[in-house]
Amino acid sequence: MGMTDTRARIGEAELLDIAGPGSVISGADLREREPGYFMDGIRADLLVRPSTTEQVAAILSLCNARQQPVVVHGGVSGWVRATQTRPGEIILSMERMNAIERIDGENRSAIVQAGVILQNFQETVEKQGLCFPLDLGGRGSCQLGGNASTNAGGMRVLRYGMMREQVLGLEVVLADGRIVSSMNSMLKNNTGYDLKQLFIGSEGTLGVITRLVLRLREMPVSCNTAIVAVQTMSAVASLLRKVDAGLGGQLSAFELIDSDFFGVNTSEGRLRSPFAKRSPYYVIIESQGADSTRDANIFESVLAEAMETGLVSDAIIAASEQQRADIWAIRETLEHVVSDFTPFYAFDVSLTVGEMEAYMKRVRADLAQTFPDGKIAFLGHVGDGNLHIAIGAGGPDDRHAVEECVYRPLGAIGGSVSAEHGIGLEKKPWLPISRNAEELAVMRQLKDLFDPQRILNPGKVLTINAR
Amino acid sequence: MGMTDTRARIGEAELLDIAGPGSVISGADLREREPGYFMDGIRADLLVRPSTTEQVAAILSLCNARQQPVVVHGGVSGWVRATQTRPGEIILSMERMNAIERIDGENRSAIVQAGVILQNFQETVEKQGLCFPLDLGGRGSCQLGGNASTNAGGMRVLRYGMMREQVLGLEVVLADGRIVSSMNSMLKNNTGYDLKQLFIGSEGTLGVITRLVLRLREMPVSCNTAIVAVQTMSAVASLLRKVDAGLGGQLSAFELIDSDFFGVNTSEGRLRSPFAKRSPYYVIIESQGADSTRDANIFESVLAEAMETGLVSDAIIAASEQQRADIWAIRETLEHVVSDFTPFYAFDVSLTVGEMEAYMKRVRADLAQTFPDGKIAFLGHVGDGNLHIAIGAGGPDDRHAVEECVYRPLGAIGGSVSAEHGIGLEKKPWLPISRNAEELAVMRQLKDLFDPQRILNPGKVLTINAR
Repeated sequence: MGMTDTRARIGEAELLDIAGPGSVISGADLREREPGYFMDGIRADLLVRPSTTEQVAAILSLCNARQQPVVVHGGVSGWVRATQTRPGEIILSMERMNAIERIDGENRSAIVQAGVILQNFQETVEKQGLCFPLDLGGRGSCQLGGNASTNAGGMRVLRYGMMREQVLGLEVVLADGRIVSSMNSMLKNNTGYDLKQLFIGSEGTLGVITRLVLRLREMPVSCNTAIVAVQTMSAVASLLRKVDAGLGGQLSAFELIDSDFFGVNTSEGRLRSPFAKRSPYYVIIESQGADSTRDANIFESVLAEAMETGLVSDAIIAASEQQRADIWAIRETLEHVVSDFTPFYAFDVSLTVGEMEAYMKRVRADLAQTFPDGKIAFLGHVGDGNLHIAIGAGGPDDRHAVEECVYRPLGAIGGSVSAEHGIGLEKKPWLPISRNAEELAVMRQLKDLFDPQRILNPGKVLTINAR
Repeated sequence: MGMTDTRARIGEAELLDIAGPGSVISGADLREREPGYFMDGIRADLLVRPSTTEQVAAILSLCNARQQPVVVHGGVSGWVRATQTRPGEIILSMERMNAIERIDGENRSAIVQAGVILQNFQETVEKQGLCFPLDLGGRGSCQLGGNASTNAGGMRVLRYGMMREQVLGLEVVLADGRIVSSMNSMLKNNTGYDLKQLFIGSEGTLGVITRLVLRLREMPVSCNTAIVAVQTMSAVASLLRKVDAGLGGQLSAFELIDSDFFGVNTSEGRLRSPFAKRSPYYVIIESQGADSTRDANIFESVLAEAMETGLVSDAIIAASEQQRADIWAIRETLEHVVSDFTPFYAFDVSLTVGEMEAYMKRVRADLAQTFPDGKIAFLGHVGDGNLHIAIGAGGPDDRHAVEECVYRPLGAIGGSVSAEHGIGLEKKPWLPISRNAEELAVMRQLKDLFDPQRILNPGKVLTINAR
């Protein structure tokens, strides 16, 4: 479909015919829906809400025959505008496919439809004494299908891995309407190519995920949390190894906060700092285990050792759920940084732990040179090599110049312009920093193979040249 | 290349020209090489040993232009004849690409060439206080590239995952000689399609892995091992959940041994049974942690609880390294079962834990009906849903009838005909039990995309129809 062709090639009646009464939203009702973060409104002509995999297949089959572009919507809580729509497109919303079909406690797995909201699933699983460990800020709105199509990360990756590691099986509808069901429930299954991997993290450009088999874990009993002050990034790296070894499999979070971010959240009238004086870096350390008393003793002794060896200059261990919440608030409160840093830019990159100190210094220097009044602060899932960067600099038109400061230095050190947020539209111009020409060529070959009519989430992730 | 065309289309001189003096083996020298398990000898015309990725690329480029079939050889220690060769084929052996290029302790990752032998890598990493957790019987001969191309499993999957979970990045040469380098070193990198997943587990049919970036872990300090007697499979399943929850992240092995296998290894004059009387099932439980005294206490208290609640009827905890070795010998000694069960057949399947009891009963019954004198025993990585089955039944021509008994019942319960061994030639006829027509069609599309000349490991995993 050319850019000038701005009317959907499929009518409301045809979609209603497939998905039933009440399944289609259009006009003012469509404009009023939540478009998602950083979106230029909802521009699509129609939204259809199928209730079954067969309806998804019928819709895609029709769209493919008509070369009708389709954008799949889950919870639209992504950060890179991967769900932005344009005039002439239709939205395939998964919101009605929201059944938790089965929880198998013995096998520690669950079968869900793609539209189940993460938090609903977490809570249902917990009632059975099990745990679904993926956890992120958008838990109340994001959907499991979207978590898979974006390979979501979050707070527990260090211990349990990304969404990719939680997915045992998938059912996918291909662009031409073929239903490919790979609903494997086992941890091991070496029978040919692992097809599900193609659809995890491809942001809706290769197929539509309709159902998932997810791995569940035992519910942890104990939770120990501390915030510690650290003087150098090299001590942060040594501390990570020390606590990971010392906690022997129980380390579940290792979150960096730099002095600037800490300062924003603990300035006068905001959150209370638990420390008497400021340090260059802070780390929140959390362990999850199976025995409250025992694990608290282990946690304390590992931290005591870290203080004795000088890796940590000060440490506060949470003695109550309230103190735990207070510690996490210093990391998770974003309102102050958003109001202090204007215009506010947020970044998500990854690099090896050993490169972090030099990279942070370089970004600070480049930013100071371009924007002498610019503000910058770093947060990070350091255990995963993941840094989040908050910047307030320049004016509304300076996004590209700010991005230059953040992304450009990643090329030489093999860093990634997107640790967990994905590419969408937002990071597409910067993709070549993290992926070379050969990788991009293979990605385009895969896109051509799975979506030759180019109907699935067109323009996202990759630029495909006109034929 | 047709089946009647039985001479390689590339000459020794051409290969020497690319890979240098001493790089080519042919004739009697080639016939004398170790062909691997269950192989019909080495039938290929030539073997070439490149030393660099660029040589691999030049060789494949030439083979692709001439439609010359190529079979990649790692340690040839697979069990499904994925490395069998035929007349007219050439072997690309990775044995000279055996450098450990870098170990990054701070980032806990390593860069290796594909021909590095697993055990050499494990030992090198351990000298730096780190651990590469993949471990399997073939450790002394198998190569890391082969571990990736077969997605190897083994003894520690429950805790650390399969080889797929250890691979952060890959360099691959495609059939047409293109080098695709995705040497990512980070745990998180959501920048477009995760291409490496296509080459992991595809048994050399989509590309040749030349280099890998591998994830390393902290070296565990403590190791606690026990063998317990259990009366029912349902108690085995409950026990798995109980010890996994109770050990809070430290459980690293949970290995089932059934009464028959136990009996074979502990009969008069063989290994000593640690128990006074026989039980229907035994489980070896092992935990790895960070503190010897503390972890031993935890391990004992979790087992004591399992005995109090009746899940376990008897338990022996290893009090020395020798006792630990004695316990594992009951699981790992295969010579007695191979000599008692003739002809000897070994299988590797997976299914959900909840289905195991009924499946084991069904296979026993089917086998008894076809082969009244047949012998059967079960072993399993139960924590991974993986059963290994040893059968001694019928004569040398009864393989298919024995396979029927093992594989046929898996279809109805969504089981897998290969948990960790792969498909190769051995399991190709049974692949449709675990993969549906739509999945097989997509696999064929991928094979066509990556290897249109069909030169890579032809005839393995998938049957591709003649054009």
